[in-house]
Amino acid sequence: MKLEILPIDGIGDVSPGDDLAALIAGAAPWLRDGDVLVVTSKVVSKAEGRLVDVPVDGPERAAARDEVLAAETARPVATRGQTRIVQTHHGFVMASAGIDASNVDRSRLVLLPKDPDASARSLRAALRERHGVDVAVVVSDTMGRPWRNGLTDVALGAAGIAPIRDHRGETDPYGNELHITQMAVVDELAAAGELVKGKCDQVPVAVVRGYLAQAQEDDGAGAVALVRDAGSDLFSLGTAEARAAGLRAAATLPAASVVGEVDPAAVARAIATVTGVVAPGTVFTYVDGEGVHAAPPGGADLVRFGEDVHRLRCALAAEGCALPVLPSGGRR
Amino acid sequence: MKLEILPIDGIGDVSPGDDLAALIAGAAPWLRDGDVLVVTSKVVSKAEGRLVDVPVDGPERAAARDEVLAAETARPVATRGQTRIVQTHHGFVMASAGIDASNVDRSRLVLLPKDPDASARSLRAALRERHGVDVAVVVSDTMGRPWRNGLTDVALGAAGIAPIRDHRGETDPYGNELHITQMAVVDELAAAGELVKGKCDQVPVAVVRGYLAQAQEDDGAGAVALVRDAGSDLFSLGTAEARAAGLRAAATLPAASVVGEVDPAAVARAIATVTGVVAPGTVFTYVDGEGVHAAPPGGADLVRFGEDVHRLRCALAAEGCALPVLPSGGRR
Repeated sequence: MKLEILPIDGIGDVSPGDDLAALIAGAAPWLRDGDVLVVTSKVVSKAEGRLVDVPVDGPERAAARDEVLAAETARPVATRGQTRIVQTHHGFVMASAGIDASNVDRSRLVLLPKDPDASARSLRAALRERHGVDVAVVVSDTMGRPWRNGLTDVALGAAGIAPIRDHRGETDPYGNELHITQMAVVDELAAAGELVKGKCDQVPVAVVRGYLAQAQEDDGAGAVALVRDAGSDLFSLGTAEARAAGLRAAATLPAASVVGEVDPAAVARAIATVTGVVAPGTVFTYVDGEGVHAAPPGGADLVRFGEDVHRLRCALAAEGCALPVLPSGGRR
Repeated sequence: MKLEILPIDGIGDVSPGDDLAALIAGAAPWLRDGDVLVVTSKVVSKAEGRLVDVPVDGPERAAARDEVLAAETARPVATRGQTRIVQTHHGFVMASAGIDASNVDRSRLVLLPKDPDASARSLRAALRERHGVDVAVVVSDTMGRPWRNGLTDVALGAAGIAPIRDHRGETDPYGNELHITQMAVVDELAAAGELVKGKCDQVPVAVVRGYLAQAQEDDGAGAVALVRDAGSDLFSLGTAEARAAGLRAAATLPAASVVGEVDPAAVARAIATVTGVVAPGTVFTYVDGEGVHAAPPGGADLVRFGEDVHRLRCALAAEGCALPVLPSGGRR
């Protein structure tokens, strides 16, 4: 097996209404069945007219940009300084919702394609039906990622190729079962394409030849299969945002909770967290099945005691214990 | 520009003490100056003897694995069920610290190379000095990432190539300055290599030909340049872990704080958060430069009032306001 990655030169500038399939087929009459086309999302967006007019300068430009960002945002994920990481309506988590001001006139912003999988399918169909070549299509864009510097290209859309290569159920030569190896091959193809596109000037499409013997007959699940839903993601919010959510939860913790299965070690950790912060002499006693009894020191300031009771509630919640804290030996 | 990605067949199994450069040069006498070798970290680890003996089964195996994981962990990042995402001593954030039980005898675990940049440099030097070919080397491994299903290969080590291609300061054809485009090319090369390695059986090394005219004379910054330090990462902790940190912070919030610059809208949001949770009749009054005065309802339960005071403190902290809450009109 040997791959080739080839740039398609000479596509030129793309404008709304342009026939992208015709531009690509014209610039690359050498395309073959089974080639994987890696197409920069920006030319797809431009051909589809996904452009917004904005002022070229000043606070009006910033305000217009903010408005566009809000419209493209399904859910804010993390913010720091000027950086806005959001989840788009497609489900992608990207800085500035993938809105781009580069490689476009200063009076316009480029939005992501409305449905990049549909864009990939329609480009594939046009190339097959009008230009007689059956390729797979990956619509790519540049993304950052947590924990690593530098950006890489990934797939926003795909057609004619399975987005994931699944090794689950296979065994290695040692007889170990491969449990979790699902490779996001369309992301790797997007990255491979970028190596060629990024080093050339104005090359929006690269071809990966040799990866597929032929394009998949149906279009496949699309790159939407790579979108992990926020509920099953361990990093659905930025650290600062999640920490603030914890503080906000602390503000509204109920006074009493139902005691379920409780780990006494977790209760001990919670009590240790507040020890040294609460008024000296305050005593917390964990009674299994009942909660934590809180007794104020003699001659206590009851307001301060109440604060300390809520402190322990927060510490318990941090340990995952929804446990009642009962002031003064069960008064509540 | 055209890239080729070629597998190196016939390297076979790698054992501790093996001369990886000799195995590669023997299997690929066709290597050329300027080729980029993408080498699976596992064969580097095996050659370097980064293996740990573990029981083949039972709770002893799980316990031994936990112990190895703890030793490889610099900092836990996120945990859910069996999944442990940690930062390694190298700074990589990976599931199970990159410890791998596949493609190795069941009595052993494979650890990451101790210093993958050093491994890349030493493999490059050996190929140049003993086999007469000057290549760049990328040591690769498979990583997951937030927000997207499926894994991709990235670079853990690199030598003879700049890890990042930097477009900052360049302008596009429309005259827009490119601000943030730093591409992690060694990650993209690792991904491109995986496309060939992953589809073949037992091919631990791929060659990317055509990306570099020649390898960089010095070894370059290495893949360590791609490690973002936790302090500047917006996702340094899992969402659940960061939320728990917020609750823990709530447990230890001080009673009084220094008032700095305060946004009255943030104070209003904080008061709105607790309204409906605190005892009816409790009044919070924001006095600029002083804090928030809290007055209990008539005939108040002072313990309950104290709880409510701390609730507001938490809500203020969630809004980023370190603001004193002064019970009963400034008693504290």
